[in-house]
Amino acid sequence: MSIIEKKRGIVIALDVTDVDSAVELARQLCDLEGNFVFKIGRPLEMQRGYKVISEIKKVSRIPVVYDGKIADIPYISSRIAQIAYEAGADAVIVHGFVGRDVIESILELNRGDVIVVMSMTHPGASQYINPIAKQLVETVNTLGVDGVVLPATKPEIIASVAPVLRENIYIMSPGIKVQGAKVGDAIRAGADYEITGRAIYGASDPKKAAEELYKEILEV
Amino acid sequence: MSIIEKKRGIVIALDVTDVDSAVELARQLCDLEGNFVFKIGRPLEMQRGYKVISEIKKVSRIPVVYDGKIADIPYISSRIAQIAYEAGADAVIVHGFVGRDVIESILELNRGDVIVVMSMTHPGASQYINPIAKQLVETVNTLGVDGVVLPATKPEIIASVAPVLRENIYIMSPGIKVQGAKVGDAIRAGADYEITGRAIYGASDPKKAAEELYKEILEV
Repeated sequence: MSIIEKKRGIVIALDVTDVDSAVELARQLCDLEGNFVFKIGRPLEMQRGYKVISEIKKVSRIPVVYDGKIADIPYISSRIAQIAYEAGADAVIVHGFVGRDVIESILELNRGDVIVVMSMTHPGASQYINPIAKQLVETVNTLGVDGVVLPATKPEIIASVAPVLRENIYIMSPGIKVQGAKVGDAIRAGADYEITGRAIYGASDPKKAAEELYKEILEV
Repeated sequence: MSIIEKKRGIVIALDVTDVDSAVELARQLCDLEGNFVFKIGRPLEMQRGYKVISEIKKVSRIPVVYDGKIADIPYISSRIAQIAYEAGADAVIVHGFVGRDVIESILELNRGDVIVVMSMTHPGASQYINPIAKQLVETVNTLGVDGVVLPATKPEIIASVAPVLRENIYIMSPGIKVQGAKVGDAIRAGADYEITGRAIYGASDPKKAAEELYKEILEV
Protein backbone atom coordinates (compact mmCIF):
# COMPACT_ATOMS: atom_id res chain seq x y z
CA MET A 1 0.00 0.00 0.00
CA SER A 2 1.39 3.36 -1.03
CA ILE A 3 1.51 6.20 1.49
CA ILE A 4 0.73 8.83 -1.13
CA GLU A 5 -2.66 8.31 -2.74
CA LYS A 6 -3.31 7.95 -6.43
CA LYS A 7 -5.65 10.88 -6.87
CA ARG A 8 -5.45 14.45 -8.06
CA GLY A 9 -3.23 16.63 -5.96
CA ILE A 10 -0.51 19.24 -5.79
CA VAL A 11 3.13 18.55 -4.93
CA ILE A 12 4.59 21.65 -3.33
CA ALA A 13 8.32 21.89 -4.03
CA LEU A 14 9.89 23.56 -1.00
CA ASP A 15 12.65 24.98 -3.20
CA VAL A 16 13.63 27.86 -0.94
CA THR A 17 17.31 28.12 -0.09
CA ASP A 18 17.29 28.32 3.67
CA VAL A 19 15.93 25.78 6.09
CA ASP A 20 14.16 28.26 8.36
CA SER A 21 12.11 29.64 5.45
CA ALA A 22 11.24 26.11 4.38
CA VAL A 23 10.10 25.11 7.85
CA GLU A 24 8.13 28.34 8.19
CA LEU A 25 6.50 27.71 4.79
CA ALA A 26 5.62 24.13 5.78
CA ARG A 27 4.11 25.47 9.01
CA GLN A 28 2.02 28.05 7.13
CA LEU A 29 0.74 25.29 4.85
CA CYS A 30 0.18 22.62 7.50
CA ASP A 31 -3.59 22.83 7.56
CA LEU A 32 -4.20 22.99 3.82
CA GLU A 33 -7.47 21.42 2.81
CA GLY A 34 -7.10 19.00 -0.07
CA ASN A 35 -4.56 16.53 -1.37
CA PHE A 36 -1.06 17.96 -0.99
CA VAL A 37 2.48 16.58 -0.82
CA PHE A 38 5.73 18.38 0.07
CA LYS A 39 8.87 17.82 -1.97
CA ILE A 40 12.36 18.48 -0.59
CA GLY A 41 15.15 18.82 -3.12
CA ARG A 42 18.88 18.43 -2.70
CA PRO A 43 19.85 22.11 -2.56
CA LEU A 44 17.71 22.41 0.59
CA GLU A 45 18.74 19.04 2.05
CA MET A 46 22.41 19.98 1.62
CA GLN A 47 21.98 22.88 4.05
CA ARG A 48 21.75 20.58 7.08
CA GLY A 49 21.54 17.06 5.74
CA TYR A 50 18.75 14.69 6.73
CA LYS A 51 17.68 16.96 9.60
CA VAL A 52 15.99 19.20 7.04
CA ILE A 53 13.55 16.37 6.31
CA SER A 54 12.89 15.78 10.03
CA GLU A 55 12.30 19.46 10.73
CA ILE A 56 9.76 19.84 7.94
CA LYS A 57 8.08 16.57 8.84
CA LYS A 58 7.69 17.78 12.43
CA VAL A 59 5.53 20.81 11.61
CA SER A 60 3.00 19.16 9.31
CA ARG A 61 1.04 15.99 8.60
CA ILE A 62 1.51 16.45 4.83
CA PRO A 63 3.49 13.58 3.24
CA VAL A 64 7.09 14.45 2.38
CA VAL A 65 8.96 13.30 -0.74
CA TYR A 66 12.77 13.42 -0.70
CA ASP A 67 13.59 14.40 -4.26
CA GLY A 68 17.09 13.00 -4.07
CA LYS A 69 17.18 11.99 -7.77
CA ILE A 70 19.05 8.96 -6.46
CA ALA A 71 21.37 7.56 -9.15
CA ASP A 72 24.12 5.53 -7.55
CA ILE A 73 25.02 1.83 -7.33
CA PRO A 74 22.46 -0.24 -5.39
CA TYR A 75 24.47 -0.32 -2.15
CA ILE A 76 24.86 3.47 -1.99
CA SER A 77 21.38 4.22 -3.37
CA SER A 78 19.70 2.17 -0.68
CA ARG A 79 21.79 3.91 2.00
CA ILE A 80 20.71 7.33 0.69
CA ALA A 81 17.08 6.22 0.70
CA GLN A 82 17.37 4.67 4.16
CA ILE A 83 18.73 7.92 5.62
CA ALA A 84 15.86 9.87 4.06
CA TYR A 85 13.18 7.43 5.27
CA GLU A 86 14.62 7.36 8.79
CA ALA A 87 14.54 11.15 8.84
CA GLY A 88 10.82 11.04 8.07
CA ALA A 89 10.50 10.97 4.29
CA ASP A 90 7.36 9.17 3.13
CA ALA A 91 8.77 8.70 -0.36
CA VAL A 92 12.07 8.99 -2.21
CA ILE A 93 12.72 9.71 -5.87
CA VAL A 94 15.17 7.50 -7.80
CA HIS A 95 16.25 7.62 -11.45
CA GLY A 96 14.98 4.81 -13.64
CA PHE A 97 17.98 5.27 -15.90
CA VAL A 98 20.35 3.61 -13.44
CA GLY A 99 18.58 0.28 -13.89
CA ARG A 100 16.33 -2.25 -12.25
CA ASP A 101 18.67 -3.36 -9.43
CA VAL A 102 18.98 0.17 -8.07
CA ILE A 103 15.20 0.54 -7.82
CA GLU A 104 14.94 -2.92 -6.24
CA SER A 105 17.55 -2.05 -3.61
CA ILE A 106 15.30 0.77 -2.40
CA LEU A 107 12.06 -1.20 -2.64
CA GLU A 108 13.64 -3.90 -0.47
CA LEU A 109 13.99 -1.44 2.40
CA ASN A 110 10.21 -1.45 2.54
CA ARG A 111 10.22 1.85 4.39
CA GLY A 112 8.05 4.08 2.23
CA ASP A 113 7.01 4.98 -1.30
CA VAL A 114 9.45 4.66 -4.18
CA ILE A 115 9.00 7.08 -7.06
CA VAL A 116 10.89 6.59 -10.33
CA VAL A 117 11.95 9.35 -12.73
CA MET A 118 10.99 8.13 -16.18
CA SER A 119 11.46 11.33 -18.13
CA MET A 120 12.54 14.94 -17.48
CA THR A 121 11.67 18.50 -18.54
CA HIS A 122 14.98 20.03 -19.67
CA PRO A 123 16.19 20.01 -23.30
CA GLY A 124 19.12 17.66 -22.54
CA ALA A 125 16.65 15.01 -21.35
CA SER A 126 15.82 14.36 -25.00
CA GLN A 127 19.32 12.96 -25.58
CA TYR A 128 19.25 9.80 -23.46
CA ILE A 129 16.51 9.87 -20.82
CA ASN A 130 13.27 10.55 -22.62
CA PRO A 131 13.86 7.95 -25.37
CA ILE A 132 13.81 5.17 -22.75
CA ALA A 133 10.60 6.24 -20.97
CA LYS A 134 8.54 3.58 -22.74
CA GLN A 135 11.13 0.89 -21.95
CA LEU A 136 10.91 1.78 -18.27
CA VAL A 137 7.19 1.01 -18.19
CA GLU A 138 7.76 -2.73 -17.90
CA THR A 139 10.33 -2.17 -15.13
CA VAL A 140 8.11 0.02 -12.96
CA ASN A 141 5.07 -2.20 -13.57
CA THR A 142 6.79 -5.42 -12.60
CA LEU A 143 8.78 -4.04 -9.67
CA GLY A 144 5.73 -2.55 -7.98
CA VAL A 145 6.93 1.01 -7.52
CA ASP A 146 4.49 3.51 -6.03
CA GLY A 147 4.84 6.45 -8.37
CA VAL A 148 6.63 7.87 -11.38
CA VAL A 149 7.77 11.30 -12.53
CA LEU A 150 6.82 12.42 -16.04
CA PRO A 151 7.20 15.99 -17.38
CA ALA A 152 4.24 18.34 -17.68
CA THR A 153 6.16 20.05 -20.48
CA LYS A 154 5.86 16.89 -22.57
CA PRO A 155 2.20 15.88 -22.25
CA GLU A 156 2.60 13.49 -25.19
CA ILE A 157 4.97 11.37 -23.05
CA ILE A 158 2.47 11.35 -20.16
CA ALA A 159 -0.35 10.45 -22.55
CA SER A 160 1.60 7.53 -23.97
CA VAL A 161 2.79 6.15 -20.62
CA ALA A 162 -0.27 6.71 -18.37
CA PRO A 163 -2.57 4.15 -20.05
CA VAL A 164 0.04 1.35 -19.83
CA LEU A 165 1.15 1.91 -16.22
CA ARG A 166 -0.12 -0.52 -13.60
CA GLU A 167 -3.34 1.05 -12.34
CA ASN A 168 -2.24 2.01 -8.82
CA ILE A 169 0.99 3.84 -9.79
CA TYR A 170 0.62 7.59 -9.36
CA ILE A 171 2.14 10.12 -11.79
CA MET A 172 3.77 13.35 -10.61
CA SER A 173 4.57 16.05 -13.16
CA PRO A 174 7.05 18.91 -12.83
CA GLY A 175 7.40 21.82 -15.22
CA ILE A 176 4.26 23.81 -14.40
CA LYS A 177 4.42 27.58 -14.93
CA VAL A 178 8.12 28.59 -14.79
CA GLN A 179 9.19 25.80 -17.15
CA GLY A 180 6.34 26.48 -19.53
CA ALA A 181 3.48 24.06 -18.91
CA LYS A 182 0.09 25.46 -17.93
CA VAL A 183 -1.76 24.38 -14.82
CA GLY A 184 -3.89 21.39 -15.79
CA ASP A 185 -1.82 20.33 -18.84
CA ALA A 186 -0.31 17.32 -17.07
CA ILE A 187 -3.57 16.30 -15.40
CA ARG A 188 -5.35 16.42 -18.75
CA ALA A 189 -2.67 14.15 -20.22
CA GLY A 190 -3.13 11.61 -17.41
CA ALA A 191 -1.01 12.77 -14.44
CA ASP A 192 -2.26 12.67 -10.85
CA TYR A 193 -0.10 15.36 -9.26
CA GLU A 194 1.25 18.62 -10.64
CA ILE A 195 4.48 19.75 -9.00
CA THR A 196 4.85 23.45 -8.37
CA GLY A 197 7.20 25.55 -6.27
CA ARG A 198 7.64 29.23 -7.01
CA ALA A 199 3.94 29.74 -7.84
CA ILE A 200 3.25 28.87 -4.19
CA TYR A 201 6.25 29.95 -2.10
CA GLY A 202 6.66 33.09 -4.22
CA ALA A 203 3.01 34.12 -3.66
CA SER A 204 2.10 36.82 -1.15
CA ASP A 205 -0.30 34.30 0.40
CA PRO A 206 1.18 30.81 -0.19
CA LYS A 207 -1.74 29.01 1.44
CA LYS A 208 -4.30 30.78 -0.73
CA ALA A 209 -2.16 30.17 -3.83
CA ALA A 210 -1.91 26.44 -3.03
CA GLU A 211 -5.65 26.08 -2.44
CA GLU A 212 -6.48 27.93 -5.66
CA LEU A 213 -4.13 25.71 -7.66
CA TYR A 214 -5.70 22.64 -6.12
CA LYS A 215 -9.18 23.88 -7.00
CA GLU A 216 -7.98 24.56 -10.53
CA ILE A 217 -6.71 21.02 -11.09
CA LEU A 218 -9.87 19.50 -9.63
CA GLU A 219 -11.84 21.36 -12.28
CA VAL A 220 -9.79 20.05 -15.21
CA MET B 1 43.31 24.10 -15.84
CA SER B 2 42.03 21.22 -13.80
CA ILE B 3 42.66 21.16 -10.05
CA ILE B 4 43.12 17.40 -9.99
CA GLU B 5 46.07 16.27 -12.09
CA LYS B 6 45.93 13.75 -14.89
CA LYS B 7 48.39 11.23 -13.51
CA ARG B 8 48.25 7.96 -11.62
CA GLY B 9 46.70 8.24 -8.24
CA ILE B 10 44.30 6.84 -5.67
CA VAL B 11 40.88 8.25 -4.89
CA ILE B 12 40.03 7.46 -1.29
CA ALA B 13 36.27 7.12 -0.84
CA LEU B 14 35.48 8.33 2.68
CA ASP B 15 32.47 6.03 2.81
CA VAL B 16 32.21 5.81 6.59
CA THR B 17 28.82 6.58 8.08
CA ASP B 18 29.60 9.21 10.65
CA VAL B 19 31.20 12.56 10.11
CA ASP B 20 33.57 12.39 13.06
CA SER B 21 35.12 9.15 11.78
CA ALA B 22 35.46 10.66 8.31
CA VAL B 23 37.18 13.79 9.63
CA GLU B 24 39.44 11.67 11.83
CA LEU B 25 40.30 9.46 8.83
CA ALA B 26 41.07 12.53 6.67
CA ARG B 27 43.28 13.85 9.47
CA GLN B 28 45.16 10.54 9.70
CA LEU B 29 45.72 10.63 5.96
CA CYS B 30 46.56 14.33 5.63
CA ASP B 31 50.28 13.87 5.07
CA LEU B 32 50.14 10.98 2.63
CA GLU B 33 52.99 11.01 0.17
CA GLY B 34 51.86 10.57 -3.41
CA ASN B 35 48.89 11.53 -5.56
CA PHE B 36 45.69 11.16 -3.57
CA VAL B 37 42.16 12.54 -3.79
CA PHE B 38 39.31 12.26 -1.25
CA LYS B 39 35.79 11.43 -2.35
CA ILE B 40 32.73 12.30 -0.27
CA GLY B 41 29.53 10.48 -1.15
CA ARG B 42 25.94 11.36 -0.42
CA PRO B 43 25.34 9.06 2.57
CA LEU B 44 28.08 10.98 4.41
CA GLU B 45 27.07 14.41 3.09
CA MET B 46 23.48 13.79 4.23
CA GLN B 47 24.63 13.56 7.84
CA ARG B 48 25.25 17.31 8.12
CA GLY B 49 24.89 18.69 4.61
CA TYR B 50 27.61 20.79 2.97
CA LYS B 51 29.41 21.25 6.30
CA VAL B 52 30.76 17.71 5.94
CA ILE B 53 32.75 18.88 2.91
CA SER B 54 34.08 21.95 4.77
CA GLU B 55 35.10 19.92 7.80
CA ILE B 56 37.07 17.39 5.76
CA LYS B 57 38.61 20.11 3.63
CA LYS B 58 39.80 21.88 6.78
CA VAL B 59 41.99 19.04 8.03
CA SER B 60 43.88 18.24 4.83
CA ARG B 61 45.38 19.69 1.67
CA ILE B 62 44.23 16.66 -0.38
CA PRO B 63 41.72 17.62 -3.13
CA VAL B 64 38.10 16.73 -2.34
CA VAL B 65 35.57 15.40 -4.83
CA TYR B 66 31.86 15.67 -3.98
CA ASP B 67 30.43 12.48 -5.43
CA GLY B 68 26.92 13.88 -5.62
CA LYS B 69 26.03 11.86 -8.75
CA ILE B 70 24.18 15.04 -9.75
CA ALA B 71 21.28 14.20 -12.06
CA ASP B 72 18.72 17.00 -11.97
CA ILE B 73 17.56 19.73 -14.36
CA PRO B 74 20.27 22.34 -15.12
CA TYR B 75 18.93 24.94 -12.65
CA ILE B 76 18.93 22.53 -9.70
CA SER B 77 22.11 20.70 -10.75
CA SER B 78 24.12 23.91 -10.82
CA ARG B 79 22.75 24.87 -7.40
CA ILE B 80 23.85 21.53 -5.95
CA ALA B 81 27.31 21.96 -7.48
CA GLN B 82 27.58 25.56 -6.29
CA ILE B 83 26.81 24.55 -2.70
CA ALA B 84 29.49 21.83 -2.87
CA TYR B 85 32.12 24.14 -4.39
CA GLU B 86 31.39 26.88 -1.85
CA ALA B 87 31.82 24.35 0.94
CA GLY B 88 35.28 23.53 -0.38
CA ALA B 89 34.86 20.79 -2.96
CA ASP B 90 37.54 20.87 -5.65
CA ALA B 91 35.42 18.78 -7.99
CA VAL B 92 31.85 17.51 -8.34
CA ILE B 93 30.56 14.40 -10.07
CA VAL B 94 27.59 14.71 -12.45
CA HIS B 95 25.83 12.05 -14.52
CA GLY B 96 26.35 12.21 -18.27
CA PHE B 97 23.01 10.58 -19.02
CA VAL B 98 21.05 13.68 -17.96
CA GLY B 99 22.39 15.45 -21.03
CA ARG B 100 24.71 18.14 -22.26
CA ASP B 101 22.88 21.17 -20.79
CA VAL B 102 23.16 19.80 -17.24
CA ILE B 103 26.94 19.40 -17.55
CA GLU B 104 27.20 22.87 -19.10
CA SER B 105 25.26 24.45 -16.24
CA ILE B 106 27.94 23.22 -13.83
CA LEU B 107 30.89 24.09 -16.07
CA GLU B 108 29.54 27.64 -16.32
CA LEU B 109 29.99 28.10 -12.58
CA ASN B 110 33.71 27.86 -13.25
CA ARG B 111 34.35 26.99 -9.62
CA GLY B 112 36.23 23.72 -9.82
CA ASP B 113 36.63 20.44 -11.68
CA VAL B 114 33.64 18.77 -13.31
CA ILE B 115 33.73 14.98 -13.51
CA VAL B 116 31.19 13.09 -15.63
CA VAL B 117 29.91 9.56 -14.95
CA MET B 118 30.03 7.78 -18.30
CA SER B 119 29.46 4.24 -17.14
CA MET B 120 28.85 2.35 -13.87
CA THR B 121 29.81 -0.89 -12.13
CA HIS B 122 26.51 -2.47 -11.08
CA PRO B 123 24.60 -5.02 -13.23
CA GLY B 124 21.68 -2.62 -13.89
CA ALA B 125 24.08 -0.18 -15.54
CA SER B 126 24.13 -2.47 -18.56
CA GLN B 127 20.46 -1.66 -19.26
CA TYR B 128 20.65 2.02 -20.20
CA ILE B 129 23.86 3.68 -18.96
CA ASN B 130 26.74 1.63 -20.29
CA PRO B 131 25.37 1.46 -23.85
CA ILE B 132 25.70 5.26 -24.16
CA ALA B 133 29.29 5.53 -22.88
CA LYS B 134 30.71 5.84 -26.39
CA GLN B 135 28.10 8.47 -27.32
CA LEU B 136 29.14 10.53 -24.31
CA VAL B 137 32.72 10.78 -25.56
CA GLU B 138 31.89 13.57 -27.99
CA THR B 139 29.97 15.45 -25.27
CA VAL B 140 32.78 15.35 -22.70
CA ASN B 141 35.44 16.15 -25.31
CA THR B 142 33.67 19.19 -26.72
CA LEU B 143 32.43 20.57 -23.40
CA GLY B 144 35.85 20.53 -21.80
CA VAL B 145 35.12 18.57 -18.65
CA ASP B 146 38.01 17.74 -16.34
CA GLY B 147 37.47 14.08 -15.64
CA VAL B 148 35.24 11.08 -16.22
CA VAL B 149 34.20 8.01 -14.23
CA LEU B 150 34.51 4.61 -15.88
CA PRO B 151 34.17 1.25 -14.08
CA ALA B 152 37.20 -0.83 -13.15
CA THR B 153 34.93 -3.87 -13.34
CA LYS B 154 34.51 -3.27 -17.08
CA PRO B 155 38.07 -2.69 -18.34
CA GLU B 156 36.87 -3.18 -21.92
CA ILE B 157 34.82 0.04 -21.61
CA ILE B 158 37.84 1.92 -20.23
CA ALA B 159 40.02 0.54 -23.00
CA SER B 160 37.58 1.65 -25.68
CA VAL B 161 36.97 5.14 -24.27
CA ALA B 162 40.45 6.13 -23.00
CA PRO B 163 42.13 6.44 -26.43
CA VAL B 164 39.40 8.73 -27.79
CA LEU B 165 39.09 11.07 -24.82
CA ARG B 166 40.65 14.52 -25.15
CA GLU B 167 44.16 14.11 -23.82
CA ASN B 168 43.89 16.13 -20.60
CA ILE B 169 40.72 14.45 -19.26
CA TYR B 170 41.49 12.20 -16.30
CA ILE B 171 39.74 8.86 -15.73
CA MET B 172 38.66 7.67 -12.28
CA SER B 173 37.59 4.07 -11.81
CA PRO B 174 35.48 2.59 -9.00
CA GLY B 175 34.91 -1.10 -8.37
CA ILE B 176 38.29 -2.13 -7.00
CA LYS B 177 38.36 -5.08 -4.55
CA VAL B 178 34.86 -5.30 -2.99
CA GLN B 179 33.12 -5.03 -6.37
CA GLY B 180 35.49 -7.50 -7.98
CA ALA B 181 38.19 -5.67 -9.93
CA LYS B 182 41.80 -6.20 -8.91
CA VAL B 183 44.15 -3.36 -8.04
CA GLY B 184 45.76 -2.23 -11.29
CA ASP B 185 43.04 -3.56 -13.65
CA ALA B 186 41.68 -0.10 -14.38
CA ILE B 187 45.12 1.51 -14.69
CA ARG B 188 46.20 -1.17 -17.15
CA ALA B 189 43.07 -0.48 -19.22
CA GLY B 190 43.87 3.25 -19.35
CA ALA B 191 42.50 4.84 -16.16
CA ASP B 192 44.45 7.42 -14.12
CA TYR B 193 42.88 6.95 -10.68
CA GLU B 194 41.55 3.87 -8.94
CA ILE B 195 38.83 4.58 -6.40
CA THR B 196 38.91 2.57 -3.22
CA GLY B 197 37.25 2.92 0.14
CA ARG B 198 36.96 -0.08 2.44
CA ALA B 199 40.46 -1.36 1.54
CA ILE B 200 41.80 1.82 3.16
CA TYR B 201 39.36 2.89 5.89
CA GLY B 202 38.81 -0.72 6.89
CA ALA B 203 42.56 -1.37 7.29
CA SER B 204 44.17 -1.43 10.74
CA ASP B 205 46.62 1.19 9.44
CA PRO B 206 44.77 3.24 6.78
CA LYS B 207 47.79 5.38 5.96
CA LYS B 208 50.00 2.39 5.32
CA ALA B 209 47.23 0.72 3.27
CA ALA B 210 46.84 3.85 1.12
CA GLU B 211 50.56 4.18 0.50
CA GLU B 212 50.87 0.51 -0.40
CA LEU B 213 48.01 0.75 -2.86
CA TYR B 214 49.58 3.82 -4.41
CA LYS B 215 52.90 2.03 -4.76
CA GLU B 216 51.09 -0.90 -6.33
CA ILE B 217 49.44 1.20 -9.05
CA LEU B 218 52.70 3.01 -9.83
CA GLU B 219 54.22 -0.37 -10.58
CA VAL B 220 51.54 -1.44 -13.05
